[in-house]
Amino acid sequence: MTTPPRNKIPRPTVKRLSLYLRELETRTELEQQTISSKQLGHALGLTDAQVRKDLAYFGQFGHPGIGYQVSELTGRLRQILRTDRTWNTAIVGAGRVGSALMAYERFHHKGFEIVAVFDSDPAVIGREIAGHRVRPMTDLPDLVKQRDIMLGIVTVPADAAQAVADALIDAGVPGILNFAPVRLEVRDAVSIASVDFSVSLEQLAFQVSLGLTGSLDDERE
Amino acid sequence: MTTPPRNKIPRPTVKRLSLYLRELETRTELEQQTISSKQLGHALGLTDAQVRKDLAYFGQFGHPGIGYQVSELTGRLRQILRTDRTWNTAIVGAGRVGSALMAYERFHHKGFEIVAVFDSDPAVIGREIAGHRVRPMTDLPDLVKQRDIMLGIVTVPADAAQAVADALIDAGVPGILNFAPVRLEVRDAVSIASVDFSVSLEQLAFQVSLGLTGSLDDERE
Repeated sequence: MTTPPRNKIPRPTVKRLSLYLRELETRTELEQQTISSKQLGHALGLTDAQVRKDLAYFGQFGHPGIGYQVSELTGRLRQILRTDRTWNTAIVGAGRVGSALMAYERFHHKGFEIVAVFDSDPAVIGREIAGHRVRPMTDLPDLVKQRDIMLGIVTVPADAAQAVADALIDAGVPGILNFAPVRLEVRDAVSIASVDFSVSLEQLAFQVSLGLTGSLDDERE
Repeated sequence: MTTPPRNKIPRPTVKRLSLYLRELETRTELEQQTISSKQLGHALGLTDAQVRKDLAYFGQFGHPGIGYQVSELTGRLRQILRTDRTWNTAIVGAGRVGSALMAYERFHHKGFEIVAVFDSDPAVIGREIAGHRVRPMTDLPDLVKQRDIMLGIVTVPADAAQAVADALIDAGVPGILNFAPVRLEVRDAVSIASVDFSVSLEQLAFQVSLGLTGSLDDERE
């Protein structure tokens, strides 16, 4: 069960891990005991070779002629991905997107707890939004340590985003989700992901152009 | 240059089209004339076999030993995906997320014009947000026809989302982008995509768990 060096895991594989885990959880609910790479691939629109390659980064799970044990693979993925833990999360930027995310119920269900909200605008600091008191940026370093904040969500305007990312990184936050429409420069020890609403709309438009009906997110064919 | 039946194009391929187009546009800026499936795959974290398979859905572009002509492939993809056109778009739900999207500048740059905003709340109807007057739902059918609205963005609470999607579909809108945390039932002739903020945060958390630093969105290794 040797795992290859973690920095060798390709980013598209990381993105597919959520899909594998979700499909395995569905199969568990259906009380399915084993699943082949072909079944898993078919459900997710991937080749069986791709499935085997992705999962091989995390160990040897497959049993020739049987496939994967659903419970074994689910347990191992959850362990690797730390889905059991709670991720203390901060939001920086209490504007429209930030406020929407403060009230986003799915975060809590997935183990993401919004434990602090920051803004630099004196008119907003001290206000309570969706049960969260907005704090000044100067409180950020101490609160990151006190609350063991692991993820920071950046929802400030584009021209402020880099400074906010730097403040989060300086405070020791290892993961940043960026909603600002700008590419952030980050240093070595930080993970970063971005949300660009125009990409989702573009993919939908392509789907309409191609005359493809149904859900783009419905990976089952 | 026969294109296979369009409903046979797998959804993951549709999602990758944006990536191909973006990479080709970068290569055009760099004045690169040709690109191999291996180069394209390497840039996007895909196998060259996957690239060839994806592009083959849209015709025979590759030249053995040369690869793809960047300008030819770019032009053909833009043509197929109709990136030249303007997509008139409506937002239904003038709450936090809806308001944030009304002000989202990248939409305009990508050819998405927000031409109408609707809400059912009498307290919100008539208000102007980010330059858009909020209209009652009863105006929706006429406006969809008058303004040739092709895409509808659903930013209402979960319990109202299905009724809103039905209203958009009844009015003849062929594409729906759903921000509500609920799975929509849609009929045959409609394309649908969803945005779930918790998926982005989950993928970031996985990246942190795996000790993978850098940008999840940076497909170049």
